[in-house]
Amino acid sequence: MIVCRTKAELKEQLQNLRLAGKTIGFVPTMGYLHEGHASLLRRAKEENTAAVLSVFVNPMQFGPNEDLDRYPRDEERDLGLASQCGVDIVFMPSVSEMYPSAPLTAVVVHKVTEQLCGASRPGHFDGVGLVVSKLLHLVNPNKAYFGMKDAQQVAVITQMVIDLDFPVEIVPCSIVREPDGLALSSRNVYLTPLQREQAVILSQTLKLADQWIKEPQLTVQSLVGRAQEHILQASEAIIDYVELLTFPELTRLEDDIRVSEIEQPLILACAVKFGSTRLIDNTILDKMEV
Amino acid sequence: MIVCRTKAELKEQLQNLRLAGKTIGFVPTMGYLHEGHASLLRRAKEENTAAVLSVFVNPMQFGPNEDLDRYPRDEERDLGLASQCGVDIVFMPSVSEMYPSAPLTAVVVHKVTEQLCGASRPGHFDGVGLVVSKLLHLVNPNKAYFGMKDAQQVAVITQMVIDLDFPVEIVPCSIVREPDGLALSSRNVYLTPLQREQAVILSQTLKLADQWIKEPQLTVQSLVGRAQEHILQASEAIIDYVELLTFPELTRLEDDIRVSEIEQPLILACAVKFGSTRLIDNTILDKMEV
Repeated sequence: MIVCRTKAELKEQLQNLRLAGKTIGFVPTMGYLHEGHASLLRRAKEENTAAVLSVFVNPMQFGPNEDLDRYPRDEERDLGLASQCGVDIVFMPSVSEMYPSAPLTAVVVHKVTEQLCGASRPGHFDGVGLVVSKLLHLVNPNKAYFGMKDAQQVAVITQMVIDLDFPVEIVPCSIVREPDGLALSSRNVYLTPLQREQAVILSQTLKLADQWIKEPQLTVQSLVGRAQEHILQASEAIIDYVELLTFPELTRLEDDIRVSEIEQPLILACAVKFGSTRLIDNTILDKMEV
Repeated sequence: MIVCRTKAELKEQLQNLRLAGKTIGFVPTMGYLHEGHASLLRRAKEENTAAVLSVFVNPMQFGPNEDLDRYPRDEERDLGLASQCGVDIVFMPSVSEMYPSAPLTAVVVHKVTEQLCGASRPGHFDGVGLVVSKLLHLVNPNKAYFGMKDAQQVAVITQMVIDLDFPVEIVPCSIVREPDGLALSSRNVYLTPLQREQAVILSQTLKLADQWIKEPQLTVQSLVGRAQEHILQASEAIIDYVELLTFPELTRLEDDIRVSEIEQPLILACAVKFGSTRLIDNTILDKMEV
């Protein structure tokens, strides 16, 4: 496994892979890797003949009052896990390597960024669009793998790739969960034992929602209301948002329509704070089973 | 020479070139090719082992009151000229092939788009950024060639390529002129005989400016003022802008400073209407000769 810290090294190593006729599966991350990332890396390696991982905590996607400074990092452990997953190249640039000067160019995706984390975290997806554009240009992968925990990120990047004709296939991958249902996240380490215990309420609520939508009269409003109520059973939970939207367009729905009458795929997504730690989770509601 | 009208055909033909080990020089155009374009195509072919031309009148870079509908087109002549220049692939997509649905993604370059045509044609460079991003992704050239007549376009695309790490070298190419000095442009066909005769005032003025800057006391304001006055000797000329800026940053300069004291490279750029035809021209002032 080769570790590249500069764009020039990466370019050289990728040329070697390309000359050897390898296809490249790419997993961009912010590091502090967990089993969710590992599942992406293993899939990248399975579906391509080489896997490239990037580890870069992108300052451009954090707001001024967000957790950039305390975002967890553990380079050594990340390299160990990457190696176990069969990664061929790890790209670990510094901030000044990625942004040698302040960029004047913005890659902005409209509409799909207006709800959910796009509304709660202004500018977040502009930072994501910028860094993912840069990384796709630097790595030029055949396929790029993204976890569905950040479902809106998948929707935004898919839209960007379609609109700009990026020559890459975006592969959305299932959320990986702890045995009790908590979606894996690098931010889970921030949780106190009590918060950790209560945080399971997110996945529990989403699982219940999969049952609730079998009720033919259930409206959008009552589904969201029930989900909010259920989450608030956890005494430490402070809801940022709970929203039911179409997927992947992420358009809003009228409050009073019946969920059973909506033909498009739907996502129920939530962001909930436990203390200063903000967790997100979501489920694509499987109405085919209704 | 192969003509591709769809992205899928283009992809297939480019794969063949790549498999044959060819390097690709790319010239994106809006067609109605003239000797300026031909010079780009010949250079693309000289510096690479294959040349790709795109012909696409991009509606996204025209404002609502601009000349999209009457923009001149002559596919047959374009193909003849391309063939003479040794072009390997011509990509001639329809609007619906390039934009199968309304794009939600914007590629916006700040600062370098605030002056000159960026100020006169709101949204123009957003359309340019979008279509050039798409074309660079579709063609994935080693080098892309742009004429310096659209100097701001060169500055904007260069900035975009740096900021987003596009794996391409942008090659700016000299302006090609008629024997009397008029910069070649597809829009020159719109000029009446009188306007055509008077249009030479642009290049004459820029040439004079190259002399004026040898005066050590000449200020920014007096240089621009003299240029404006000289252009207005042409009775049909209506000035859109005459500006002296740094290049390639395109930052404004204080009116009252001496041009001889400015260390950065400078561009004197103008846009002038003759009737409803808007012409642009510019010169990079060569202060090294001062």
